[in-house]
Amino acid sequence: MPNFRLTLEYDGAAFEGWQVQSSPHRTIQGELEVAIARVTGTQVQTIGASRTDAGVHAEGQVASAAIATDLKPEVLQRALNGTLPADAAVVDLQLAPDDFHARYSARAKRYRYQVWNRPTRSPLRAGRFLAVRRQLDVAAMSKAAEAFVGRHDFAALQGAGSEVESTVRTVAQLQIEADSEGAIAFSVEGDGFLRHMVRNLVGTLLEVGSGRRPLESMAELLAGGDRRRAGPTAPAHGLTLVRVFY
Amino acid sequence: MPNFRLTLEYDGAAFEGWQVQSSPHRTIQGELEVAIARVTGTQVQTIGASRTDAGVHAEGQVASAAIATDLKPEVLQRALNGTLPADAAVVDLQLAPDDFHARYSARAKRYRYQVWNRPTRSPLRAGRFLAVRRQLDVAAMSKAAEAFVGRHDFAALQGAGSEVESTVRTVAQLQIEADSEGAIAFSVEGDGFLRHMVRNLVGTLLEVGSGRRPLESMAELLAGGDRRRAGPTAPAHGLTLVRVFY
Repeated sequence: MPNFRLTLEYDGAAFEGWQVQSSPHRTIQGELEVAIARVTGTQVQTIGASRTDAGVHAEGQVASAAIATDLKPEVLQRALNGTLPADAAVVDLQLAPDDFHARYSARAKRYRYQVWNRPTRSPLRAGRFLAVRRQLDVAAMSKAAEAFVGRHDFAALQGAGSEVESTVRTVAQLQIEADSEGAIAFSVEGDGFLRHMVRNLVGTLLEVGSGRRPLESMAELLAGGDRRRAGPTAPAHGLTLVRVFY
Repeated sequence: MPNFRLTLEYDGAAFEGWQVQSSPHRTIQGELEVAIARVTGTQVQTIGASRTDAGVHAEGQVASAAIATDLKPEVLQRALNGTLPADAAVVDLQLAPDDFHARYSARAKRYRYQVWNRPTRSPLRAGRFLAVRRQLDVAAMSKAAEAFVGRHDFAALQGAGSEVESTVRTVAQLQIEADSEGAIAFSVEGDGFLRHMVRNLVGTLLEVGSGRRPLESMAELLAGGDRRRAGPTAPAHGLTLVRVFY
């Protein structure tokens, strides 16, 4: 049975995240599996590289699935896009080695968190940016962010309700860029992320940027391992899964 | 009574355009006038620089209104933004000379039309870009566009149902830029635009770009003045009013 690698783009606003849940929830995985069943006549289980939360967007989520089909990849892709709802699409679809597993084979992931930092809100950016009125100190946030780069125990930035064996992860890159219009983008790349880790990291850095938390306190926060001492979880709609690396 | 100049940003998706119509329609002008009434207790009539169509977005629509209020501009702006719905905002508000009229005082306007030109659709761009699968010839469209620059009778590109004395307009700039990802932006600047003129112009150029219309036929199209010989009206959701010049 051929194994496929699917790259997905979606607007997360109207989804309850990637993962299939009890039936009334609309999830990307659920819509994808329905589309595959309609196109190929077979029920399959897909695996996503990242279990994106409700409201989180993706430019490059990757899924793998073994599908009993004779359709060529480009035909299967076109048929799936004709079947999927408007807010999700398969932007790439390829045959993959039998042992390709979207989650376990992933080497790294990159996320982007977008903030709109102007006194007035921006309706055209509302769905993709967190609006922060008070002017943020980008230099202070960048300096504070350095403490998160490298191999660390990120237990202090882990959301509740997750069960993982180890909370040690490696953040390869964490860059913060502000443009002249008022947009600030946090770009984070690492080998893996704990539940809510990117959003908690951004929420903590936003406290630094607004002067409510000393920028030197990051190493101490990580060392303490106490979620209650980190900043709030930044809202989902500012976050986009940009790319998964294999 | 002080006269104000308001700059508005809106996501046009859920509006029936700028202009107030019979009551069940949701319009930007209508929402703005309701917000002004709530904040200041007075009914006013606002004037918009451009009567954007249903579904058209704006980054810089300008409105003028004489409002009986003692509120300072920055206080009035903040109060309006607290009252307006999430898909519209006042991004700038200033006192203006008594004779300032958003429409009659305007010297020029700039619009942008966005096309997503890839074989697969892009959910994250769906609300702002027209999706065109077939690869467009940008060089041919740019060459054809030259015929529209300057002072011309644009009757052939005027939508039905408009009553204007003259259909002569001056297009100062018309640039088409493609990025490496698949986005194509048409940027049009002129002293004024007929109803549907930008969308008909884009619809005609898209026929050139897809090889269905010779690029040399533009001058002839304008000379003929026959709307039926122009291309179809490009959909509203790709269009944004970028800026009004005074």
